[in-house]
Amino acid sequence: MAEAAQKADPAASAAQSPVRREDSDGIAILTLQKPATRNSLSSATMAVLQELLDACAGDPAVRVIVLAHEGPAFSAGHDLREVSGLIEARDTAAQHALLTQCSTLMQQVQKITKPVIAEIAGIATAAGCQLAAACDLVVAGRSARFGTPGVNIGLFCSTPMVALSRAVASPKHAMEMLLTGDLVDAEHAFRIGLVNRVVDDAGLREATLALAQQIASKSQATIAIGKAAFYRQLGMPLAEAYAFTSDVMVGNLAIDDANEGICAFIEKRSPNWTDR
Amino acid sequence: MAEAAQKADPAASAAQSPVRREDSDGIAILTLQKPATRNSLSSATMAVLQELLDACAGDPAVRVIVLAHEGPAFSAGHDLREVSGLIEARDTAAQHALLTQCSTLMQQVQKITKPVIAEIAGIATAAGCQLAAACDLVVAGRSARFGTPGVNIGLFCSTPMVALSRAVASPKHAMEMLLTGDLVDAEHAFRIGLVNRVVDDAGLREATLALAQQIASKSQATIAIGKAAFYRQLGMPLAEAYAFTSDVMVGNLAIDDANEGICAFIEKRSPNWTDR
Amino acid sequence: MAEAAQKADPAASAAQSPVRREDSDGIAILTLQKPATRNSLSSATMAVLQELLDACAGDPAVRVIVLAHEGPAFSAGHDLREVSGLIEARDTAAQHALLTQCSTLMQQVQKITKPVIAEIAGIATAAGCQLAAACDLVVAGRSARFGTPGVNIGLFCSTPMVALSRAVASPKHAMEMLLTGDLVDAEHAFRIGLVNRVVDDAGLREATLALAQQIASKSQATIAIGKAAFYRQLGMPLAEAYAFTSDVMVGNLAIDDANEGICAFIEKRSPNWTDR
Repeated sequence: MAEAAQKADPAASAAQSPVRREDSDGIAILTLQKPATRNSLSSATMAVLQELLDACAGDPAVRVIVLAHEGPAFSAGHDLREVSGLIEARDTAAQHALLTQCSTLMQQVQKITKPVIAEIAGIATAAGCQLAAACDLVVAGRSARFGTPGVNIGLFCSTPMVALSRAVASPKHAMEMLLTGDLVDAEHAFRIGLVNRVVDDAGLREATLALAQQIASKSQATIAIGKAAFYRQLGMPLAEAYAFTSDVMVGNLAIDDANEGICAFIEKRSPNWTDR
Repeated sequence: MAEAAQKADPAASAAQSPVRREDSDGIAILTLQKPATRNSLSSATMAVLQELLDACAGDPAVRVIVLAHEGPAFSAGHDLREVSGLIEARDTAAQHALLTQCSTLMQQVQKITKPVIAEIAGIATAAGCQLAAACDLVVAGRSARFGTPGVNIGLFCSTPMVALSRAVASPKHAMEMLLTGDLVDAEHAFRIGLVNRVVDDAGLREATLALAQQIASKSQATIAIGKAAFYRQLGMPLAEAYAFTSDVMVGNLAIDDANEGICAFIEKRSPNWTDR
Repeated sequence: MAEAAQKADPAASAAQSPVRREDSDGIAILTLQKPATRNSLSSATMAVLQELLDACAGDPAVRVIVLAHEGPAFSAGHDLREVSGLIEARDTAAQHALLTQCSTLMQQVQKITKPVIAEIAGIATAAGCQLAAACDLVVAGRSARFGTPGVNIGLFCSTPMVALSRAVASPKHAMEMLLTGDLVDAEHAFRIGLVNRVVDDAGLREATLALAQQIASKSQATIAIGKAAFYRQLGMPLAEAYAFTSDVMVGNLAIDDANEGICAFIEKRSPNWTDR
């Protein structure tokens, strides 16, 4: 529907779309831009985000994806009016569909072989916190706050905790967020593993872009191999993980960029990647 | 047996029991009160603790459980005279029974669908450290010390390490405690994920009760759903965890407290939980 | 080959060998001593290291193993000229053999039932970082730097990430190192779980030996039981881990050192281990 609207009137739709895409130098910035809804992840917004992520994944010009936001919220999670409607209707099929869409979005972020960096200076709660946790990297401004407050409204953040408990190093620190519903600040989020870097809000865009540009300067083929292998090996027993990644390394050795990269290193020059 | 004694003479037995229970405002405080034994987890003490945990689990008035202690030790672990007797008797069946009882107690803490908070200002070592690690949350006074010193007496803390290595974020930090037998202080325990909050000893009870009351104010049905789901999804592969928790969420949406909580949120009022 | 050389001329070979072994008081120090190659893990060097680790494992006089280094690098990982040769030759069998050798070495460090402590004041990158991550404990001087820079040369550190992502508590912190190729300092490495202790470079040897001596003073039989059990139980579901470690504990209770250790504790004297 969002796509149809774009075709009809791109300018108007760009203003109306819940997410806008801006590209430069191999970096696609996807900005959640419905601050009036606290960038809630309504089904419609998630659909747009899924389309944009797919488009970026398939666009050879995109090397790194940044998820950014306008306004004081990165995202406050599901649209509670939408959820409330599904409760009233007792439409469990539609409830399942909504949650499956959300889980699919979160897993899509990891399945895309391009790094996805969340840029957050505001609140990221419930499915919004889940989205942050699902990204490969998170750069936070000091004003960023993270929480899973579902417990406050009788609806435990059970799907958000899948991403949260896999990002936060200690189960106790994840459990505290889930049981209290409290917001934690950026520094705490860094300590418990939910955030990679904390910077002043004023320098957030600069810091995010510097990180994105650094990663964008690498061989895209190599990054794709590595990101995919990372998540696959995480849950494997040690011996299996080594057998799997040894195969991955042999595959990586066969690509032109590995040969070029190693030669460049030995010859003390900058590498020329095939895709640059 | 403890129960029989209580019925015969509640006052005397309350003094003699290794654990006493005090309830107020939905919070049951279970206090280990045998400081002369450093609150050792003898088979008899574990049996009393298991009974009390079961009783709290089944008591609808109890919303949160606090595990506290009298004296300078939260618990120093197994009763070594009891263990020594089982070694001398070469009674491997009784040794197995004792360890199984201990492991069952630790898993019971997680299986209870009510949050269990350890309140610790003193040493928690060996199975005492395990008990802390097995709790959902730990609030520590600055004087708290944690350790797995079994290695010092020729008996590696192999069962405690199950809980320890699942609570402490990095295997290296768990391994250091296990190989050295050293005590770590509350701040270090916080950094490595074993403790949620560190406060001055003087403010420990206040801090623990504030946390317990905060959690007790939530919908108990929601907490029960969430705590159970948390531990079940932890070990699952990502896709399986999302499928499982999506089902949990749909189940959660069907309970009255979710409908009430979401309506209250939209209407900007406090929710009235069914069980309050 | 190294062994043959040693037999022919021990003095000359000790100078030429990429790793030297020095023993004292139950501690075997294996020092990577080819600073000109930044202690690269060539196939030949890994073979020597594997032999030395095996020899230490089988030597009843060795209670703790320290992996140390000469020069500004602990190890910079694979020998890139060797890797480059295998790329040019398109010899995937030899590539597989090299990676399998490396993975075998890393798993050998964990399989040895004696604790292995890395002592690092310099860079540990790629497979060098992997070797640090694979050790049971790491003591770092403040000058230590860790990184997985394969991404910079088109060859993602896919096998190093197996050890890295199991040592570093948060996947995001591991992912940041892998995607950026940046070096992290010793303090950051401590925070994310890759390092146990950070000390001034000047005090590094003293700190490492103090830790090694402390662990060497324990019952070797007990340490062997515990280290093996630790890595086996890590990946198990909770109930399985408790059943497994309960068996381990009963086995541990049957060894003389456990009886001696517990009796010594009760009698308030120092234990006399069977192997000391």
